[in-house]
Amino acid sequence: MKALRYENQKLSVIDIAKPEAFGEALVRVTLSGICNTDLEITRGYAGFQGTIGHEFVGVIESLPEPGAVARPSGRASIASEPELTSGLLTPGQRVVGEINAGCGICDLCVAGDPRHCEKRTVLGIVGRDGAHAEFLRLPVVNLLPVPDEVPDERAVFVEPLAAACGILERAQVGKGTNVAVIGDGKLGLLCAQVLATTGALVTLVGKHPHKLQIASHRGIETITSDQARLLTPAFDVVVEASGAATGFELALDLLRPRGSLVLKSTFHGASNLNTARIVVDEINVIGSRCGRFAPALELLKTNAIEVESLISEERPLTDGLRAIERASEPGVMKVLLRP
Amino acid sequence: MKALRYENQKLSVIDIAKPEAFGEALVRVTLSGICNTDLEITRGYAGFQGTIGHEFVGVIESLPEPGAVARPSGRASIASEPELTSGLLTPGQRVVGEINAGCGICDLCVAGDPRHCEKRTVLGIVGRDGAHAEFLRLPVVNLLPVPDEVPDERAVFVEPLAAACGILERAQVGKGTNVAVIGDGKLGLLCAQVLATTGALVTLVGKHPHKLQIASHRGIETITSDQARLLTPAFDVVVEASGAATGFELALDLLRPRGSLVLKSTFHGASNLNTARIVVDEINVIGSRCGRFAPALELLKTNAIEVESLISEERPLTDGLRAIERASEPGVMKVLLRP
Repeated sequence: MKALRYENQKLSVIDIAKPEAFGEALVRVTLSGICNTDLEITRGYAGFQGTIGHEFVGVIESLPEPGAVARPSGRASIASEPELTSGLLTPGQRVVGEINAGCGICDLCVAGDPRHCEKRTVLGIVGRDGAHAEFLRLPVVNLLPVPDEVPDERAVFVEPLAAACGILERAQVGKGTNVAVIGDGKLGLLCAQVLATTGALVTLVGKHPHKLQIASHRGIETITSDQARLLTPAFDVVVEASGAATGFELALDLLRPRGSLVLKSTFHGASNLNTARIVVDEINVIGSRCGRFAPALELLKTNAIEVESLISEERPLTDGLRAIERASEPGVMKVLLRP
Repeated sequence: MKALRYENQKLSVIDIAKPEAFGEALVRVTLSGICNTDLEITRGYAGFQGTIGHEFVGVIESLPEPGAVARPSGRASIASEPELTSGLLTPGQRVVGEINAGCGICDLCVAGDPRHCEKRTVLGIVGRDGAHAEFLRLPVVNLLPVPDEVPDERAVFVEPLAAACGILERAQVGKGTNVAVIGDGKLGLLCAQVLATTGALVTLVGKHPHKLQIASHRGIETITSDQARLLTPAFDVVVEASGAATGFELALDLLRPRGSLVLKSTFHGASNLNTARIVVDEINVIGSRCGRFAPALELLKTNAIEVESLISEERPLTDGLRAIERASEPGVMKVLLRP
């Protein structure tokens, strides 16, 4: 099968063997999305070697045992929507998959949340081939059926949307909270929309009029970075989703004392931070990584979040190198790959 | 009067005019303590010019109105000990003083907590001459009487001890919490002792056997940095009190996923931080600066905290330059100045 792989500091689309299931589910990928983390990996982030990609929607090709496989009961606590979790999975079913694959036996995994399992692998990021390929494998417990109302072009956003939802697990955001989101890229646009669903007063800070417009069409306040620098530092929460070191400095400029700065971007290399400001203003810097898929699928199902306009283009998987180049260009948002 | 001043990038003990009270209390300093922040100021931190020093005990020389001055009622919310706050202040009384002087009219000041007042001055740090002098002035509302049981040599520790107590306002620490404190300097030793009073399981990480011994005499677990690097990352909370960039990295190594890293040290310049680790492990980095004096005075009164053994030496104020040099030397802990 074809796969977009990063090996020995080189990215290429090559033919490799279709993965063996090894007790996991085999999924035929129908659409995958290029994330900034993919780009960071090609710059050395996480030291990953293999097939990149962790955003996908696909169809179950095979399951480890013949016929339907019940979801383990430990999984029940993960999601709020019973119809998303208690159903049976069958070959041919359309699915998305959470990207952290835990050991299955540590306290975290037994509690149904492998996101911080010490021995986890992560699809296309840590020790596990990823989604920019014709097939991938994942533990059955990671898969969630995609509701019929959600087409592939929306379902492929479930992973970054879940990451945006993850902010709500980590920071206190609710009705009336003054929140700024820095970065009008795809992650920033998803974060701003998710936070707005809570009744928070959300301001998106960016520099691309056509991207800011996506948010303002959803009723979200938008300003440029230059305008933001003139504001009084009065935000309760600032989400850094620009991935730029300057975003961190701007976030500190916007926060009230004892405010919370949520870091969403992972990038390769160290940042030069003025930690004295964190101490003097008693800021809370909150790291936030992956979210659960169930609440994100629910948001996609109810059309609460605009994702279609975040798609810049779709290319065939065989055109993966060019797609990665395009995704790296300023102004380009989500680039999708179709195997 | 004599004062230890940092001006035009030069530190000197010089004769200046005794301060005018300008509606504030005038305090004759009897003992002051050299803090690492003083040393940072002489390296450019906070851009401060003037008399340095913010740790002191003294005697009221004069109050803005003749006779006793009642403490404003708005102050009542600050402290838990009525006998520390409701008394009358009179000239001749022994006092300590909180170092943040607010505008008195903003919401924060009206609520009785000027620590984040936007227009605050800070004794010997921001816009206000400090404590390494024969006299200083502070708003009456900042002063707290020193209980008779607390001699000057203990009372002079109230400011750094309050800073240690401030951690409890910001991070969840209580019975059974696994806490590591990095740094066996005076701040680290105070933090470790304060945290231990909550029933937390405290480990102090340092490199000086004679300093670690002060903590172990108080029943606190102590280990070296090299030993710490061999530990499983399982601490719920790590307090960085070493002021070294390596302390930050070690703290991340020691924390469990979703643990809290409390930053206590302010130092001049930027730190090179691997922010990806904060995101991937979903760490909470909590800035913590000043604490309130009332709980710290209570701890000093009940002898719950060992401070005497943190005193390395006492020098006359006229010997201020040498005292600052000494305080900068490795292994030296608290250096006191007597005007």
